[in-house]
Amino acid sequence: MFQALPLVEDGGVEYFGLTSEELALSAASHSGEPFHVTAARSILRKAGADEHALACGPHLPMHAKSAEALVTSGQPPSRVHNNCSGKHAGMIALAKLHGWATEGYHELAHPVQQRILETLAYWCDFPAGQFAFATDGCGLPTFALPLANVAAACARFSAVAADPSSPAGRVFSAMAAHPEYVAGTDRLCTDLIRAARGRLFAKVGAEGYYCAGVPAEGIGIALKVEDGAKRASEPALLAVLRQLDAIGEDELRSLARYARPTLFNTRGAAIGDIVAAWS
Amino acid sequence: MFQALPLVEDGGVEYFGLTSEELALSAASHSGEPFHVTAARSILRKAGADEHALACGPHLPMHAKSAEALVTSGQPPSRVHNNCSGKHAGMIALAKLHGWATEGYHELAHPVQQRILETLAYWCDFPAGQFAFATDGCGLPTFALPLANVAAACARFSAVAADPSSPAGRVFSAMAAHPEYVAGTDRLCTDLIRAARGRLFAKVGAEGYYCAGVPAEGIGIALKVEDGAKRASEPALLAVLRQLDAIGEDELRSLARYARPTLFNTRGAAIGDIVAAWS
Repeated sequence: MFQALPLVEDGGVEYFGLTSEELALSAASHSGEPFHVTAARSILRKAGADEHALACGPHLPMHAKSAEALVTSGQPPSRVHNNCSGKHAGMIALAKLHGWATEGYHELAHPVQQRILETLAYWCDFPAGQFAFATDGCGLPTFALPLANVAAACARFSAVAADPSSPAGRVFSAMAAHPEYVAGTDRLCTDLIRAARGRLFAKVGAEGYYCAGVPAEGIGIALKVEDGAKRASEPALLAVLRQLDAIGEDELRSLARYARPTLFNTRGAAIGDIVAAWS
Repeated sequence: MFQALPLVEDGGVEYFGLTSEELALSAASHSGEPFHVTAARSILRKAGADEHALACGPHLPMHAKSAEALVTSGQPPSRVHNNCSGKHAGMIALAKLHGWATEGYHELAHPVQQRILETLAYWCDFPAGQFAFATDGCGLPTFALPLANVAAACARFSAVAADPSSPAGRVFSAMAAHPEYVAGTDRLCTDLIRAARGRLFAKVGAEGYYCAGVPAEGIGIALKVEDGAKRASEPALLAVLRQLDAIGEDELRSLARYARPTLFNTRGAAIGDIVAAWS
């Protein structure tokens, strides 16, 4: 959400005539399904750029059927299939909006990333000079800062997003209205926003990270699985949301395959569940 | 190792004329390479059984090239490709040796599993009646008991295995002489035993488990990644072995891709290493 905010704040959505679906995709880790690819290409086209401007690396769509279809077609995966291509397309649009070179938009020194850093520093209430940096899976700078600051940023984002006309509210509304653009088919972010009928947002990150928030209640959540394994993050997120009463028992039950996934062995036997436990 | 011991103790290796390679495979989680499959079939044939007796489920070989070759051949993976088929074949041989029915050999109530339970209880110095049970990935009973007891069992196994004529020594010698049968190509168990020139044993388990030992020094090691993610287990095992001086700096360096694996992103850039840290 925070990486998509500058484009909204600076007027890029109106300037380029981006749709609500395209804005949601700018805050997504999508599954590379055909409708995601179409929307990413549309953002690029509206911004006067094309796929070659994308700095993210190619990988097969996370959505198995879309990956299969691509392999069967004989075409290699391209950068637009990268789960972050929507974010990248939004950043290219931000560069075009300001008349900055699109070349190198993914590098920390580029004005696009400096604008995002300033945004994150504001929402996280953490000095930009004290951020630590690494490179994300898609080539963007990724930011190291205390988990509590990220949770507080999500809470602030939630509180502001309760006003749908605010930039945060517009990003949230896009995610809430088009959850399939935030992640994709059979993905928790999408199914959770849908189960909660757009009452909350949820966004997965790499290495066991999850952010979520409930605007009407000003709730913000950030969680990280210590060793970076993502398997535990989904049951943990749903347990936290339930504990905060941010989702109801019925909603939790409808998300059971994420909340308490069953492990099957090579014989096809159910041999265990992954369960969130408070200690 | 413990699951293979009864077959040695009860005279099955001599009775069926099993080779040292086949004994190593009985204590393996192998990669389903052609030589593994051949050895598993050979154990079954010598025991007067065939693949249909195997209770483990079919899955593609863990070795990518062997999996590719199988897919290209149009044949589905069979039970003999299961990484535990050597262990299962050894258990079927144990049943045949004693004249027990092979049917149901993978069930806890079967004499084969009771014989293994008794063996584990002895080595782990833990009452058989206090074990907790679950079902393993391959359908065998798996045993829950304190990690310290498993480490002590590995230390006892090491101490006894220093005598190559003991049953533990014979299992260890087979693993040390034929490390490629313990795991396979580009697998840590194999490459570690090889790097240490057969001075130690190492055996991976499911859900982030690792056992190892150094017979000449009576050292035993058991480690478990708390959340079951295996990514951390290899750097952790090698760090422990180095700390105990069970492997030298040169050996550790030759295993660098396991000791400190590098993460690459979708752009092909090195973005981090997994490093064992003492806290």
